[in-house]
Amino acid sequence: MHFTAQSTTDGIVERDFTLGDITGVLWSPEGGSGRAPLVLLGHGGGNHKKHPAMAGRARLLVLGGGFHVACIDAPGHGDRPPFTKADEREIAEMLAAREAGRPEGPIVERFNGHLAERAVPEWQATLDALQELPEIGPDGPVGYFGLNMGTAFGVRLAAIDRRITAAVFGLFWHGSLEEAARRITIPVEFAMQWDDEHIPRESGLALFDAFASADKSLHVNSGKHKELPRFESDSAVRFFVRHLTV
Amino acid sequence: MHFTAQSTTDGIVERDFTLGDITGVLWSPEGGSGRAPLVLLGHGGGNHKKHPAMAGRARLLVLGGGFHVACIDAPGHGDRPPFTKADEREIAEMLAAREAGRPEGPIVERFNGHLAERAVPEWQATLDALQELPEIGPDGPVGYFGLNMGTAFGVRLAAIDRRITAAVFGLFWHGSLEEAARRITIPVEFAMQWDDEHIPRESGLALFDAFASADKSLHVNSGKHKELPRFESDSAVRFFVRHLTV
Repeated sequence: MHFTAQSTTDGIVERDFTLGDITGVLWSPEGGSGRAPLVLLGHGGGNHKKHPAMAGRARLLVLGGGFHVACIDAPGHGDRPPFTKADEREIAEMLAAREAGRPEGPIVERFNGHLAERAVPEWQATLDALQELPEIGPDGPVGYFGLNMGTAFGVRLAAIDRRITAAVFGLFWHGSLEEAARRITIPVEFAMQWDDEHIPRESGLALFDAFASADKSLHVNSGKHKELPRFESDSAVRFFVRHLTV
Repeated sequence: MHFTAQSTTDGIVERDFTLGDITGVLWSPEGGSGRAPLVLLGHGGGNHKKHPAMAGRARLLVLGGGFHVACIDAPGHGDRPPFTKADEREIAEMLAAREAGRPEGPIVERFNGHLAERAVPEWQATLDALQELPEIGPDGPVGYFGLNMGTAFGVRLAAIDRRITAAVFGLFWHGSLEEAARRITIPVEFAMQWDDEHIPRESGLALFDAFASADKSLHVNSGKHKELPRFESDSAVRFFVRHLTV
């Protein structure tokens, strides 16, 4: 892991890093000395590690919970090498379905599943490297917070990597994730939109139901897919404070 | 409305009152001078106006939101005249069903509906009297927060009394309340338990779905009927701060 840039703004240290061809960012409390828990942020499809939604959530987590917060660009996103030809065909198919008013769910589920085959090992390698930093360390609690494609990656990651000890997911279909969700037993907070024009209610509820966690919460809000209220990010911070700090 | 007792503890003024044969309590911020919004608390079946759950929620609302908080004993509860013979027959029937492991939902729904015929006008008379107090006033925002029987009363109250401008409900069946819920358009936060042994998931979801509110949130938590997490009371305070204060 190589840090390539560092800046400090409003109490938050932001460090860009690379790990092989993975590009990422680590946000930390300014003047933090002792160890602090780590939260991994998974960005949505078409976005990137420093999208305002990621930077905004990182800010809430660093200032509200004292956490380290890391985000990496998904394959083909942000500062990563461009999409493969196969990726581009799936994207074209998704856009065509959207244009024609056909359900894009099956295409998004398949495409995000293909990306996850690359993204999950990348997250694990990133977590390996982050845990070598003295301010994070090998034994600390680790959270994962990702919606949309961030959920498609995070559910698969949390199902196989026991270092993840609490997770906030949401806004995804159940079909391709149900099996992985059934292997997850850590505390989960799950967000869905009651009037989501892409994801049927039954599909979101089925994914929430599939988590094997004894401690899980579902937050449903009225509104369409992109209308998730801002206060759900505050809720996620409280969730991680409850579960990652003593 | 006659105030019959007053005490002050930890920044909260507690005033007992009577209004005809209604017995109630009003909690207010100590040293509060200007007007503040009012939250009505509806207690659960078998409880009373000063049950620890009510006093605890009042404390969070007064100290966290600066609200006035009022709770009245339901018919037959707390310091009220005893249940009627008809009430007692319904309670006996409910207890017999519980004892025999039969669903108590239909009996609770019917019994709480009968109590609501008395309780809703009592709430309206109480609200009339509270709004004559200078520290509350006739035009201020009014919230309602009640679970279980508190929801059976509150949904019916909010459906007909436009003074209620935001409400937190939860833990009740949809059948007897669906029609009233469809007339409610104010912001609503609704709580249900995913593993409720009395209320089927589909029934809780159907009640949430029935609210005509453009702004509504559902909070589902794992666990049985009585295992609603304490942090949902904090969530209710934040909800009322968002909707009752400018």
